[in-house]
Amino acid sequence: MKLNKNDINNLDYRFKIRLINSITGPKSACLIGTKSKINGTNLAVFNSITHIGSNPPLVGVIFRPNEKVRRDTYENIIQEKFYTINHINSKINERAHWTSAKFDKHISEFQSCNLIEEYIEEFYAPYVKECDVKIGLKFKEKIDIKSNNTYLIIGEIINIYVDSLFIEEDGTLNLESSDSLSVGGLNTYYKLQMLTKFPYSRIERLPIF
Amino acid sequence: MKLNKNDINNLDYRFKIRLINSITGPKSACLIGTKSKINGTNLAVFNSITHIGSNPPLVGVIFRPNEKVRRDTYENIIQEKFYTINHINSKINERAHWTSAKFDKHISEFQSCNLIEEYIEEFYAPYVKECDVKIGLKFKEKIDIKSNNTYLIIGEIINIYVDSLFIEEDGTLNLESSDSLSVGGLNTYYKLQMLTKFPYSRIERLPIF
Repeated sequence: MKLNKNDINNLDYRFKIRLINSITGPKSACLIGTKSKINGTNLAVFNSITHIGSNPPLVGVIFRPNEKVRRDTYENIIQEKFYTINHINSKINERAHWTSAKFDKHISEFQSCNLIEEYIEEFYAPYVKECDVKIGLKFKEKIDIKSNNTYLIIGEIINIYVDSLFIEEDGTLNLESSDSLSVGGLNTYYKLQMLTKFPYSRIERLPIF
Repeated sequence: MKLNKNDINNLDYRFKIRLINSITGPKSACLIGTKSKINGTNLAVFNSITHIGSNPPLVGVIFRPNEKVRRDTYENIIQEKFYTINHINSKINERAHWTSAKFDKHISEFQSCNLIEEYIEEFYAPYVKECDVKIGLKFKEKIDIKSNNTYLIIGEIINIYVDSLFIEEDGTLNLESSDSLSVGGLNTYYKLQMLTKFPYSRIERLPIF
């Protein structure tokens, strides 16, 4: 399949959305948990979680303000400052994905999708009990993306909860052990199978290819 | 493992870098190809490719200007405007990863890592011949991330080359068929195994969980 800019523009709209959403490759499949003083808790599946930096530890998420379900999460983060990112695993894959349905504002996806709110050490936002990798974040920066009127929200990691069995000696989280899923496009989920782990690429050790 | 902000700050530096780089979950493993009129071609592995929007089709990449290898790519994109994103597959995993070594500015990683430059339809930047999913982009917007002095570079997709066998009827790229790899942290690569594909989550069809 060869597509230039015109071809892409002229694709059937739904076909285009699915192609472009998947063409950038594997994405992280996570649930973002938030709480609003007025509307209660909210839980939503997100696939635009991006590592921004390690020192300080920063994570980004892209928000499209036009999409109803995601606006709740966005508003809660801006208003309340605290939120959680929780890795989707295969046991909760279906329930997690269904948080993307358009529930009413005052309905909590935790309840509708049968996932348990977990509050740890007085952190304001709810974690997802069924998830084995949980991150607590504090809002840090909101960035306007002018090209398509979306936002990049940056948060600082202030809490991490993960079973030590999943963490390798050097600090790396083993995503196969943690059963963390990847998502392709909007609705296809993949399990991960570790293929290779490379040492730091020192130029002196360059193999002969 | 339970870590709060202080615990994270006090981790061994390398342990922290590896933990934070991997804690956000699976990332897309891609090669970015660029060309400079002065220094020739450049190829570098990137794991911060992010879908920004489908209409127009926009892709983002995070750049850390302090890292030598990635600055070449950054400068070439800003100067020449055109670049390519190519999915890493298992056949070229090792060669692709080695593009992260610190080669001199005038040395092309294509040559050092034995990957073939491919020029398609007069597009300025080189694609990677060995990759089965190739995207041609035009620079659109540079965004400063103040929290850690990094940049988000947004590009518009203007060319897509992918075997039709990997594209499902609805437009979704099947990332298991395309052998697209995911990367966890800095240097661990995973193969993808399709687990589930859900229909659009219409609230009327909510299952009983």
